[in-house]
Amino acid sequence: MDPIVLFDYIGTMVFAISGTLTAAQKRLDLFGAMFIGFVTAIGGGTVRDVMLGNMPVTWIKTYDYFLIILLGIVLTVVFKKIVIKLKNTLFLFDTIGIGVFTVLGMEKTLELGISQPIAVIMGLISAVVGGIIRDTLCNELPLIFHREIYATACIAGSIVYLILRNIGFPPLAYTWITVGTIITIRLIAVKYSLAIPLLTITEDQSSSNPK
Amino acid sequence: MDPIVLFDYIGTMVFAISGTLTAAQKRLDLFGAMFIGFVTAIGGGTVRDVMLGNMPVTWIKTYDYFLIILLGIVLTVVFKKIVIKLKNTLFLFDTIGIGVFTVLGMEKTLELGISQPIAVIMGLISAVVGGIIRDTLCNELPLIFHREIYATACIAGSIVYLILRNIGFPPLAYTWITVGTIITIRLIAVKYSLAIPLLTITEDQSSSNPK
Amino acid sequence: MDPIVLFDYIGTMVFAISGTLTAAQKRLDLFGAMFIGFVTAIGGGTVRDVMLGNMPVTWIKTYDYFLIILLGIVLTVVFKKIVIKLKNTLFLFDTIGIGVFTVLGMEKTLELGISQPIAVIMGLISAVVGGIIRDTLCNELPLIFHREIYATACIAGSIVYLILRNIGFPPLAYTWITVGTIITIRLIAVKYSLAIPLLTITEDQSSSNPK
Repeated sequence: MDPIVLFDYIGTMVFAISGTLTAAQKRLDLFGAMFIGFVTAIGGGTVRDVMLGNMPVTWIKTYDYFLIILLGIVLTVVFKKIVIKLKNTLFLFDTIGIGVFTVLGMEKTLELGISQPIAVIMGLISAVVGGIIRDTLCNELPLIFHREIYATACIAGSIVYLILRNIGFPPLAYTWITVGTIITIRLIAVKYSLAIPLLTITEDQSSSNPK
Repeated sequence: MDPIVLFDYIGTMVFAISGTLTAAQKRLDLFGAMFIGFVTAIGGGTVRDVMLGNMPVTWIKTYDYFLIILLGIVLTVVFKKIVIKLKNTLFLFDTIGIGVFTVLGMEKTLELGISQPIAVIMGLISAVVGGIIRDTLCNELPLIFHREIYATACIAGSIVYLILRNIGFPPLAYTWITVGTIITIRLIAVKYSLAIPLLTITEDQSSSNPK
Repeated sequence: MDPIVLFDYIGTMVFAISGTLTAAQKRLDLFGAMFIGFVTAIGGGTVRDVMLGNMPVTWIKTYDYFLIILLGIVLTVVFKKIVIKLKNTLFLFDTIGIGVFTVLGMEKTLELGISQPIAVIMGLISAVVGGIIRDTLCNELPLIFHREIYATACIAGSIVYLILRNIGFPPLAYTWITVGTIITIRLIAVKYSLAIPLLTITEDQSSSNPK
């Protein structure tokens, strides 16, 4: 099996697990948690495919994603105590997942002859939109908007991807260097608690609706 | 008129009414309430059609849904006191609506030659996504994620649909048995206050942001 | 350059600026603010294009929107103090923007041979959905649902558009009269603090969850 496909599957499953766990913390019922797990796993790829006109979207056409997501959700529900203890392992696979999703999103976009800067956006959308939908459905401000160098790692990785691709590196090389770059940046950012500065606008803070 | 089409129309109108009423309780203005009524009615079918690549989506192509939704919204705004008193009738038609939406969602998916488990998901999406968008736009945790056997009824019904279809029942039979199953399960669940258990994860509850 | 294209560009940039500013008031980080700025600018047109089956959606196919949005976001981040002081200018361009977006949304719909009432809805969606997504992602009740005659101006304008078009006015005339109508209604509404009445339903207010 192509390792990129394997990591796509693993990433998808980890996204399903993280969605289910997030929902469980919001006191959703079993169905709500499973639904959110599903949406977290397919969200990014679905939005990307729809905007590109790639329909029926991937997880509808191929059967594999459905089974992998179901497995991830069921494992989380049945072994929730064990799954929670695997936090660090899950974090690592989540990081590999966003790396692989970014690369696959870019590939699918460039294959259609779409311009390179748009491919960066589509790679980003593939990696982050699942989590944004998860948090929005859970009635939370999306985590990615106010914590961790997550999107920045994807964008940096996708710029590396384009540079190496344009100077003629073979696909296998720029694919894995990109995934490696994304993983490295995120791991370093989390280890040293790096975060993106807030875009604070003091003049308006008094007028923003208090909640 | 094919009774399934009639019930589809009635279900759509009831969804428009429920959306408008939910929005009214959130102190939205008239436009906001009407907009949410519209989105609640078309949400599930639109997301399903888009993911399947069925575009322009149904309510854009045919004129009927637009008129039915408009009628539902206007009736709600003009006769709001009467509409609220019809709570039980609305609940019944809402239940019929989700039954019919589930069946139609499955049919549209299977017609495209897509696999049966995915058809279950698409039936579910047709039935529940309108309500999820309604609650999310109203800045609420979707009702369906933490109350009532709603989605479970749809899933049970769609499994009945597949079994009867696979063993060779005629379409008319499995369509109506499915709708009947969904209605029965939901009515029993509401009568006896059955609910799906929460997926509580005690270890993490202390770390979840209190709101 | 066709002035309608120019105003489409200006409107897109102003939407990107307003999205970035709204996000900044919610204490999002730089990435979150830029992401929301982007989504606010492309949201309405993307949802319209997807429902019509117009894929890849406009901003993916042409390069221009991406650059304009990026410019708007970067200007906001770098010159945020100056941008905030331009409030009135931004408001004016935002108003021109929704006028132009309404007209363009109607045009794209009618070109496909879709009925006139649906074109009104698609014009409205083009103008308002970006702001709705912006507020929902920021975990706020969409502003447009409870303040200002915003959508009403779009709907009134689109009815003027259809009347003039049907009685045979030349495209240039009904386009600009529509944009003018939308701008005039909104300016008058804001000047005299006109608002749409709430759809209050007193019987249910006691049972609505207080927040």
